[in-house]
Amino acid sequence: MRGFKALTPIAEAQKVVLSALRHTPTVERIPTPSAVGLYAAEDVASPIDVPPFDRAAFDGYAVRSADTLGASRTNPILLRIVGKVLPGGEYPSELKPGEAVEIATGAPLPKGADAVVPYEEAAARGEYVEVYKPVPVFYYVSRRGEDVAAGEVVVKKGRRIKPWDVGVLTSVGIREVSVFKISAAIISTGNELVELEDAPPPPGKIVNSTRHVISALLRELGAESFYLGLVPDDEEAIYNAVREALAKFDIVITTGGVSVGEPDYVIKAVSRLRPEVLVHGIAARPGRPNSAAVVRGKPIVMLSGFPVASIVGFEVFVKPIILHMVGAKEEPAPVVRAVLTRRVTTPINVRSFVRVRVFRKGGVLYAEPLAVTGSGVLSTLTRGNGLLVIPENREGYDEGDEVDVILLAPVEDA
Amino acid sequence: MRGFKALTPIAEAQKVVLSALRHTPTVERIPTPSAVGLYAAEDVASPIDVPPFDRAAFDGYAVRSADTLGASRTNPILLRIVGKVLPGGEYPSELKPGEAVEIATGAPLPKGADAVVPYEEAAARGEYVEVYKPVPVFYYVSRRGEDVAAGEVVVKKGRRIKPWDVGVLTSVGIREVSVFKISAAIISTGNELVELEDAPPPPGKIVNSTRHVISALLRELGAESFYLGLVPDDEEAIYNAVREALAKFDIVITTGGVSVGEPDYVIKAVSRLRPEVLVHGIAARPGRPNSAAVVRGKPIVMLSGFPVASIVGFEVFVKPIILHMVGAKEEPAPVVRAVLTRRVTTPINVRSFVRVRVFRKGGVLYAEPLAVTGSGVLSTLTRGNGLLVIPENREGYDEGDEVDVILLAPVEDA
Repeated sequence: MRGFKALTPIAEAQKVVLSALRHTPTVERIPTPSAVGLYAAEDVASPIDVPPFDRAAFDGYAVRSADTLGASRTNPILLRIVGKVLPGGEYPSELKPGEAVEIATGAPLPKGADAVVPYEEAAARGEYVEVYKPVPVFYYVSRRGEDVAAGEVVVKKGRRIKPWDVGVLTSVGIREVSVFKISAAIISTGNELVELEDAPPPPGKIVNSTRHVISALLRELGAESFYLGLVPDDEEAIYNAVREALAKFDIVITTGGVSVGEPDYVIKAVSRLRPEVLVHGIAARPGRPNSAAVVRGKPIVMLSGFPVASIVGFEVFVKPIILHMVGAKEEPAPVVRAVLTRRVTTPINVRSFVRVRVFRKGGVLYAEPLAVTGSGVLSTLTRGNGLLVIPENREGYDEGDEVDVILLAPVEDA
Repeated sequence: MRGFKALTPIAEAQKVVLSALRHTPTVERIPTPSAVGLYAAEDVASPIDVPPFDRAAFDGYAVRSADTLGASRTNPILLRIVGKVLPGGEYPSELKPGEAVEIATGAPLPKGADAVVPYEEAAARGEYVEVYKPVPVFYYVSRRGEDVAAGEVVVKKGRRIKPWDVGVLTSVGIREVSVFKISAAIISTGNELVELEDAPPPPGKIVNSTRHVISALLRELGAESFYLGLVPDDEEAIYNAVREALAKFDIVITTGGVSVGEPDYVIKAVSRLRPEVLVHGIAARPGRPNSAAVVRGKPIVMLSGFPVASIVGFEVFVKPIILHMVGAKEEPAPVVRAVLTRRVTTPINVRSFVRVRVFRKGGVLYAEPLAVTGSGVLSTLTRGNGLLVIPENREGYDEGDEVDVILLAPVEDA
């Protein structure tokens, strides 16, 4: 077969690229609520104790625990109710011996009090409350700092910030956080391409759809994409575009111009940048043409121009590179076990990515493999809701085999 | 216990609320690339065939299959190479008997040709190519429409649009799609609250963090949130705020003012709107105060003011309501089986949501339950990376039990 002589196994390709990276994206401080989905650029410690004061953990009566010593059902102790405190309020003076203050969950414990007797364990008698058992110090009290202590790290560097992290950060009063601002340039090549605005394309031309897929995948990953336009199939033009982009962006992504049968302008152009690392083609199906390089520590990923193959290249190169640059781990993906409805044959020594349709029938999950050859691939993206990854050491799976499938959309009912 | 008399089981609460909904969010047409993460408001059919023309599925020679009849290793058939066609190009005339055109994958098949002989199955001999075996009609040809036929639905109504859907939609030249524009009002109540801008809060006050959590969760769900501000703990003020919001937004969410021990202004205010359905409190832990109502077919969700409890209320009410309104299914969540490091005891007839820390040790996944009582809950959000849901019919799990855990962040190494 013409084209690629030696296809690099995926694990090896990733290792050689990641270990050559010497670039960290810019850090910027942004309002905490805007940080969801972005990566923390430093450890964030709480400036305060949570709770900031001792407070009631239950509705009831704030008391001095010493006052309840010896209390029992038969010999209840009577305390005088001298006030009431709600969340956001404050009891204006100090609780004296023999006194109790009605208190709601979350309200600050009055000075002098050190325990809360829940309503259930007491009974109001006009101005007084009867307590039926002795309560220990800090009974039903949330201690200052027991949840989060001042100085404690609440969000670690590299963590992808979640909605609930924002809850914690704002609760402790952190108004701004430092996050990585990851910028990705997208350069498309291919004389057969027209932009979406020019759809429908003239005969022989196709819409540049891949750039939109990659842009959306970047956004989902917390990176910002900048589309630099269509560059003609010309080595010099591609060389200039990539070189300029490399100076400005954290990662440069090209689409197209790397398939077998296409003139390899992109590979030639990138080679002229004297990369420390150049992986030309990977042992993946689909996605063989996806390539990557590292130039002075910065990554260039050369993706296939075909949407399905480009997604494989994104998963193999772009995602691990971006996570590596910001020190993050990959977020977990939903995986289910399903029964294959028919045999799938794949080449050995190649990692195959087979789109499947996962459906439930009679309480059992099945995975129907969708076309893996021919051009019948675009439709597998919308018809399929799962991805079956077949490792290099297998030549496929048999009908009836139980396989792990990555779910990309909800399971269907048969 | 004071407060809620009858807590509604979660499944029942959801059923009664969802079945009373009579509202559909507005539909708007937006550029296809902006539709990722939003919900399709109608079936989208392809206006064109994909491929739009018969094209080469492999690099080689476009031929007339009839010309290859009788070809063999010993008696190869010689065809004259009359040209070359690349993707985006076009062979200018019709292929005549005895002719071949060099063709690259994706290039349109020349008129007259009906098959592609891959390079591997032929050999160039100067101006000629030797073909060693007969090829059938459409050999290595991607037929027009074989991937997607014109008129075929590529994105179904209610589908949450994925990056690869955008690949398909733009490939077939669809520039705009109709999506649901889901608007959610957030109204916070609680005299103890101050906004993040006013942090650090004065003594006895706390930052309104819940509104930021809910806003972020809404964004992740593909809905837009509008924060209407802090409303005082006053029935009339809350009534007016909710009533006005109900007229303008698809869903109204209040935070705070529904906990036991808090004056129930929110429930009272919403009751005055004469809801068809009012669920006051659910059998959940945490999250008991979360409530919901339906007023003239539109949803109002009254969430706890505490971040952790409000997230439970979001999952129980807000998410199912929004998915129901747009006809969408819930996206799959990552679930792993892990071994509990210690016993968890939970009340019967209540669904418990226990935050856990999932870690890997010696190749085994473990789940360590984090504090479930006291105020030690905020920190469980950042310390934990998983959620263990304990159903109503169980009183917990024992140490060593294998449990299903929803992963919310990457697994840690012990």
